[in-house]
Amino acid sequence: MKHTISVLVENKFGVLARIAGLFSARGFNIESLAVGETEDPAVSRMTIVAEGDEKTLEQIKKQLNKLIDTIKVADFREGEFVDRELIIVKVNITPKTKKGIIEAIDSFGGKIVNVGSKSISVEAVGDHNKVKALLELLRPFGIIETVRTGKIAMGIDDKRLEGGAKPEVNE
Amino acid sequence: MKHTISVLVENKFGVLARIAGLFSARGFNIESLAVGETEDPAVSRMTIVAEGDEKTLEQIKKQLNKLIDTIKVADFREGEFVDRELIIVKVNITPKTKKGIIEAIDSFGGKIVNVGSKSISVEAVGDHNKVKALLELLRPFGIIETVRTGKIAMGIDDKRLEGGAKPEVNE
Repeated sequence: MKHTISVLVENKFGVLARIAGLFSARGFNIESLAVGETEDPAVSRMTIVAEGDEKTLEQIKKQLNKLIDTIKVADFREGEFVDRELIIVKVNITPKTKKGIIEAIDSFGGKIVNVGSKSISVEAVGDHNKVKALLELLRPFGIIETVRTGKIAMGIDDKRLEGGAKPEVNE
Repeated sequence: MKHTISVLVENKFGVLARIAGLFSARGFNIESLAVGETEDPAVSRMTIVAEGDEKTLEQIKKQLNKLIDTIKVADFREGEFVDRELIIVKVNITPKTKKGIIEAIDSFGGKIVNVGSKSISVEAVGDHNKVKALLELLRPFGIIETVRTGKIAMGIDDKRLEGGAKPEVNE
């Protein structure tokens, strides 16, 4: 089963390697991983998509919670979160194919990020299925390369992951 | 100095932990890391933003190239690439602030991904400065939480990172 796990960690040397190591040591393959800063510069947030059985995941979560640099671990359940990923795709372009490619990009709400003499690069955001559909649409033109962020996820409730004080509001 | 490094690796257990470990062992702090699949399911692409000196980076690159699972390492130079990151921001919302928040989101080309009873979540794509500006605009309303993908980068030439055959084109 596929799991989407969010981990808030202290932004310190080696934390990332230790957490990635916890998954691989137990035979969980990480399908995607995204790590970025949060509003607190001392804290990073990791989103991990990994496949494996429930029991092993419970063990990994316990070990994650034991790490001194872990602030909070969340294992998102279906229907409780939104997830998105970003992709940049570089596609072959010729005078003949240009129009079709630009139409495909527009229909997906994609945005052109670079135009070369023989290629065009486009960014698009979506869930896994949307990104897959875009790639299928562009593949016949000749995809040169892709780079993907991996998935990020956020709970759909009104709370923050780590609990804590409500932010100040300036009305 | 900040470096943006792209690494193509075999999609295998433990590769991620090993690569993250190479950076932390040499005192390079990873600011952001994004790992996603590529067009070849056996290959993942990592984008690493890390800060440190040129000499140590050269050593890390050498060690990366020595890893059996590394296919290609690229250290992008300024002006040779485009970079983007994706952020989801959850902001407090009240009947009073709703209009101002939606205007702020629209002015940034952001997209609403979820509306709760007391919060609104929005996705936005940009380079580091654009994301920073969006956060500054939303901060007065009360940011509940953020999740960021970390940066992905792609060369602006017409080639693919790993070299190799040109993709087939269906004109």
